[in-house]
Amino acid sequence: MFNAKMMRLGEERSAIRELFEYGNRRKREIGEENVFDFSIGNPSVPAPACVGEEIGRLLAEVPPETLHGYTSAAGLYEARRAVADYLREKFGAPMSPDLIYMTCGAAASLAVVLGAALQRGDEVIVIAPFFPEYRVFIEAAGGVCVPVPAGERFHLDLGAIGRAVTERTRAIIVNSPNNPTGAVYGREEIAALSRLLEEKSRGKDPILLIADEPYRELVYGREVPFIPNFYGDTVVCYSFSKSLSLAGERIGYIAVSPRCSGAEDLFSAVCGAGRGFGFVCAPALFQRVVMRCLGQSSDVEEYRKNRDLLFGALTEYGYACSEPEGAFYLFVKSPEPDAKAFSERAKKYELLLVPSDSFGTEGYVRVSYCVPKKTIERSLPAFGRLMEEYRR
Amino acid sequence: MFNAKMMRLGEERSAIRELFEYGNRRKREIGEENVFDFSIGNPSVPAPACVGEEIGRLLAEVPPETLHGYTSAAGLYEARRAVADYLREKFGAPMSPDLIYMTCGAAASLAVVLGAALQRGDEVIVIAPFFPEYRVFIEAAGGVCVPVPAGERFHLDLGAIGRAVTERTRAIIVNSPNNPTGAVYGREEIAALSRLLEEKSRGKDPILLIADEPYRELVYGREVPFIPNFYGDTVVCYSFSKSLSLAGERIGYIAVSPRCSGAEDLFSAVCGAGRGFGFVCAPALFQRVVMRCLGQSSDVEEYRKNRDLLFGALTEYGYACSEPEGAFYLFVKSPEPDAKAFSERAKKYELLLVPSDSFGTEGYVRVSYCVPKKTIERSLPAFGRLMEEYRR
Repeated sequence: MFNAKMMRLGEERSAIRELFEYGNRRKREIGEENVFDFSIGNPSVPAPACVGEEIGRLLAEVPPETLHGYTSAAGLYEARRAVADYLREKFGAPMSPDLIYMTCGAAASLAVVLGAALQRGDEVIVIAPFFPEYRVFIEAAGGVCVPVPAGERFHLDLGAIGRAVTERTRAIIVNSPNNPTGAVYGREEIAALSRLLEEKSRGKDPILLIADEPYRELVYGREVPFIPNFYGDTVVCYSFSKSLSLAGERIGYIAVSPRCSGAEDLFSAVCGAGRGFGFVCAPALFQRVVMRCLGQSSDVEEYRKNRDLLFGALTEYGYACSEPEGAFYLFVKSPEPDAKAFSERAKKYELLLVPSDSFGTEGYVRVSYCVPKKTIERSLPAFGRLMEEYRR
Repeated sequence: MFNAKMMRLGEERSAIRELFEYGNRRKREIGEENVFDFSIGNPSVPAPACVGEEIGRLLAEVPPETLHGYTSAAGLYEARRAVADYLREKFGAPMSPDLIYMTCGAAASLAVVLGAALQRGDEVIVIAPFFPEYRVFIEAAGGVCVPVPAGERFHLDLGAIGRAVTERTRAIIVNSPNNPTGAVYGREEIAALSRLLEEKSRGKDPILLIADEPYRELVYGREVPFIPNFYGDTVVCYSFSKSLSLAGERIGYIAVSPRCSGAEDLFSAVCGAGRGFGFVCAPALFQRVVMRCLGQSSDVEEYRKNRDLLFGALTEYGYACSEPEGAFYLFVKSPEPDAKAFSERAKKYELLLVPSDSFGTEGYVRVSYCVPKKTIERSLPAFGRLMEEYRR
């Protein structure tokens, strides 16, 4: 009677959300401090001070009917200019305010770009493990999700990517710093990917590189190369959810590189998809807030401390995982082949770990360490006892 | 190369936005006070005091990582409960928090409900003149927009609606108080519509009534009947854009009536469509603000004064229009058959009036009187001189 695809999408709770809701129930049963919820990527470090300060200043200085009124569909021009100026200054890239589109966060950025770029049956390459909603947005846009396994230490496997390209390949999604592995792709890696995509695009419409970058600033001493400086046909999908700890406020942007073939056409299609999906404009107050907080970020050192503590202890206990270079996830090899069984066993110790199956890779769990340090400290004995089960 | 439908949608600026952008250019040329911009429905009356107060209180009392963090996809449970309680108390309707879905405003509410309810080729009846984005959202969901002309004084023409129903009719969108006519449908009218839809639904999947109600509180001494009390298969699409003057903040809700056939299935499909379009959750800060401001509204008296001033003067000058019962639009008959030509002629007097063609009705202009009273006062001589052109 209703749309069957949408019903299915609404009923199949994501594995992450499922575990998160289980955790909330469990906390009510045995007390919040006794559940070690590593399920969800909700920033635990508060927004930097500028966020609250700018909200206060805006409320005091801008009349409410202006402050909370509609903006242009693509966003306030001053916000778009501020983003373009920031990217130009920071990365020396020729970004233009006329190709910046303010969005309701990273999910909206991705859904809109895919809706704009894809025609029915177009293929989009994603690197497994990958954020599960990629498949949802690709399929909602009528496309086909083509997972390609990551290579060593979850970095790019260029050979595998090259083999996955077909006549129907329209785009590739690159997510660095990576959710769920914490990998950060280096300059040479991005340069090599760019050469591969250029070669594969010869004589046809160029393959679009969609750079999904919500974790750009959450990096531990590593450089995150700015991909539009390497590959012309790039669209950056950015979100302030993690960098400014504003995950619930739904604010981000799409930046179409002026070097994209048909950049203006793509931007028109972005505006069209935003309109068709019902976005109208990105939240007005937070457009004004983020344009004043560009270049600021929540305290990454807090996440680094969490990473060091958790990574150190888990490897000591015998868990296998590579050290995250960015983001706030640890991707841990399951001590038994079936990650779902391992995740279930972990629940006995009140440890909530997301099995990797829904990320398109088997045999791992994702541990989101964007939690209070105390939670990690209190959880360590549980991780220890859990591993002992496999040693007996 | 990109999605042609989305490109077209992005390129064809809506007539409203086109005129609005023209007005902004013109204001830069001749000064803001000399352009009489009646193009857009951006509330001119400030948000009620509770909005600013609650933002301040929330910033002071809730830790930022909680305040700005993700909520559940359907919204904070306490916000959903507050909405359901409010609707239950105010209208005596059996609404349930489990069937309330917080959205990014009315456009999102409509796009998501249509995406959830429609299958390819399903027909949706709209009453002409109608908000032009209805067609965009219906077609984005794979449906067919079926306009039915309004009857006397722009109220419902039940005969015409009955004749428009076919085997493929899936839904009807009802918008009262109405944009662009200001009509408010009364109890008997809604009851008669309900009887018609019940009769037409016999032996098939019931026709869904989508009640688009952003103007519910903006009414001049008229009752706005709560449609779920009349017709079981109703979904209310609400927005706080106009009632709390928060148009840019993108906050509203979908309320599926528990009396809907398959209410839970429809709610699942709503969750799925929200997920597929990339909504994640409605803006978190404003979910908390609106749940504390339910039942409040911007000062409707300001809009009433504008209506009385404008309606009185225009009818005196010889314009034909019916008196708006709600919302903040005056729908004025064009003194020449071609409303676009009239709108062009009005520009000579710096009057920006939206021709009705894009609303699916010819021969009228929409005058949005959500502007400062001073703008109306200063514009009246221009309206007078414009009419004189037709008297010569």
